[in-house]
Amino acid sequence: MTASDFAHRAVADGVRTGTDAGLAAFDSAARKAIATCRRLATFSDEPVFTTRTFLSEAARAVLDDLRGWMARLGMDTRIDAAGNLRGVYEGTSADRPHLLIGSHLDTVPHAGAFDGVLGVVLGIALIETLEGRRFPFAIEVVGFSEEEGVRFGVPFIGSRALVGTLDETLLQQRDAEGHSVAEALRTFGLQPSHLEQARVANAVGYLELHIEQGPVLDTLDAPLGVVSAIVGQTRADVVFAGQAAHAGTTPMAMRRDALAAAAEWITSVESSARGVEGLVATVGRLDVEPGASNVVAGRSRASLDVRHARDEVRRELSDSLRRRAGEIASRRRVEAEWIMKVDQPSVTMDARLTSLLARAVESSGAAVHLMASGAGHDAMIMASSVPAAMLFVRSPGGVSHHPDETVNQADVAAALKATLQFLEDLAVAVDG
Amino acid sequence: MTASDFAHRAVADGVRTGTDAGLAAFDSAARKAIATCRRLATFSDEPVFTTRTFLSEAARAVLDDLRGWMARLGMDTRIDAAGNLRGVYEGTSADRPHLLIGSHLDTVPHAGAFDGVLGVVLGIALIETLEGRRFPFAIEVVGFSEEEGVRFGVPFIGSRALVGTLDETLLQQRDAEGHSVAEALRTFGLQPSHLEQARVANAVGYLELHIEQGPVLDTLDAPLGVVSAIVGQTRADVVFAGQAAHAGTTPMAMRRDALAAAAEWITSVESSARGVEGLVATVGRLDVEPGASNVVAGRSRASLDVRHARDEVRRELSDSLRRRAGEIASRRRVEAEWIMKVDQPSVTMDARLTSLLARAVESSGAAVHLMASGAGHDAMIMASSVPAAMLFVRSPGGVSHHPDETVNQADVAAALKATLQFLEDLAVAVDG
Repeated sequence: MTASDFAHRAVADGVRTGTDAGLAAFDSAARKAIATCRRLATFSDEPVFTTRTFLSEAARAVLDDLRGWMARLGMDTRIDAAGNLRGVYEGTSADRPHLLIGSHLDTVPHAGAFDGVLGVVLGIALIETLEGRRFPFAIEVVGFSEEEGVRFGVPFIGSRALVGTLDETLLQQRDAEGHSVAEALRTFGLQPSHLEQARVANAVGYLELHIEQGPVLDTLDAPLGVVSAIVGQTRADVVFAGQAAHAGTTPMAMRRDALAAAAEWITSVESSARGVEGLVATVGRLDVEPGASNVVAGRSRASLDVRHARDEVRRELSDSLRRRAGEIASRRRVEAEWIMKVDQPSVTMDARLTSLLARAVESSGAAVHLMASGAGHDAMIMASSVPAAMLFVRSPGGVSHHPDETVNQADVAAALKATLQFLEDLAVAVDG
Repeated sequence: MTASDFAHRAVADGVRTGTDAGLAAFDSAARKAIATCRRLATFSDEPVFTTRTFLSEAARAVLDDLRGWMARLGMDTRIDAAGNLRGVYEGTSADRPHLLIGSHLDTVPHAGAFDGVLGVVLGIALIETLEGRRFPFAIEVVGFSEEEGVRFGVPFIGSRALVGTLDETLLQQRDAEGHSVAEALRTFGLQPSHLEQARVANAVGYLELHIEQGPVLDTLDAPLGVVSAIVGQTRADVVFAGQAAHAGTTPMAMRRDALAAAAEWITSVESSARGVEGLVATVGRLDVEPGASNVVAGRSRASLDVRHARDEVRRELSDSLRRRAGEIASRRRVEAEWIMKVDQPSVTMDARLTSLLARAVESSGAAVHLMASGAGHDAMIMASSVPAAMLFVRSPGGVSHHPDETVNQADVAAALKATLQFLEDLAVAVDG
């Protein structure tokens, strides 16, 4: 059925409708998806807050819950060797390539109810709306077991398994209690030796549905965003080493103040990033030693996080901030040390799939806002093996990684409508 | 005897002399004083480092040691009810007023060997050089039990007892283990009810000898400094409250970055203080929340310490920095809160005694460098009841509150020579 068929049937099914019967039907599915996310948020490693780490008992409860829903829809389900939830809704015939739809099921500590899990729930909700209708591709809904990197300090463990980069080094990574990834998988009842079977094969693409986690769509009053690329990241620490001194007895001109040096540099970080479209540069952590009100700081360590969709723009700023730290330090007779931690290139989404997605958003009636994702996502990992595309749902207030994180029901409905349209357009493209 | 008598007798005593016999004799006394300070630095609350807190067993060992030296010189010694060491070297008759000479015996954690204790040791060393010669005033050497404020978070407990401001509120102040000052005194074997007997009466003045703890004299290549005033202090905390946000997904223009606001303000603190003679302004502590490299800071708290010998200069800067915080905050859509903690006026040293001291320094052959003290000292407390003067000894490299803290032997000798001259000049003044 088409999106408009779905609306007609929704009326036939007795779903409450407004003046726009189609939208009301998607609203109903959206309402159920939101309620499901809210319910799953109560599956947590701790009381009160939502904290669901990789391979925890709460993670198992979420897997069981969603797997049950998948099974009721007639999907062929499994938990792969990396703990990912996989549910296949067959295509018009058994050997059809897979379109993967999904996101991750783990959370940050004290999370909201939508980061990650919304994309998995919407994948299943979409299958539910199909009521047996088949496409010339299978739809495989994926719930990645690990994306946030909370337990092992390494993100994307789930999606790495699908592209074959969950290697021996990663499997030996240890959590705070000293357990390796491999041990944790076995404790959960999984076989690391079967990881090969988790790899994706014969896929037509991967579509990730995810909340934006930023204020851009909300500011534009746009329900949906089509992701063009996931930004590259520079992460570095800058250490200024001066001389601790008595705040009362050391004249201003004789100081080698490591905090004043850092402060000057931080203002440069901010002003250099402003004015370049899409460029963000952040100092979010600053440690000062000895850190007493009556002692001139002898040492400071500032974090730097620079992101942009074009690697040359990001690297140019990063290089310039490195030089700037050196200039500030030498003028102030302090030392500056640059400790490079991450230089991760940006990942462009698949052009064909993204253009198909943008057209589907448009023909579903929503405005198309093309944007880079400032946060990393599983789509970034999947893109190495599979054509990947990503749809953002507006984050009201830009709030995420916080219990106040939310979504608008109308936006979720718009995402479902656009995704159904995407399936129809993709079906034409695959057949044609 | 006069300073030159002393030098002659030093030669007679067989003290090794150079071309300047007098200087060599003071050198010998200085060498002994330095060795004594180094030895006392091994009396510590902890191994390896010198940390000697109020009423600790190490503090008792220092009291016993110095009291023994005093007694061998025929001084009348006692430990007063606040734990201060008091040793009286009688004047030409029994009822003569007292000239107090001294400093404190406690230390900061991981201290050097000279901050405080040098002034007490030099007081006794001076008595030793007199060999029974009497003045028209008694000399009372005082070793204050508490100046640094380490144990109870309140400084100057020792000198407060001498001026009668160690009151019931202070006595009820508690240390980290929950013991009050009164309890700690009793545990040490002292009677808080006898505090009245610790008060100073019939004093001609208080002379404090102390290392500079700053780089000014060293930069001027001057061995001694005469303190004109002890600076006033403003201490405040400034809290900037913005909005924590994702460092990747929040465009620069939409941020309310509490660390960037603090950084801009810190550069103002530094630049506003520069260029005004004797003015110092310091941000030594900066706490950032949540303090993660990938999160825009939602809250920052910066300490401010402003000092100057003229209160109106200090308050003008402090007021202007308060306004500046408000301006920065409002432009950035963050909140600024100013938490005033200390507004302590400057204390001028006694004009007559200070001028006598300056003349003594000059006639002893050293250059007179008049300066404000940027650090607080017992002289500041004593000045409320007694004419107070203060002599600084150069701190090589400006290093203090650190195991590397040191003194030059020649500078210590110059301090002894100048102080002996001061006694002689004061004797004339008292008699005349």
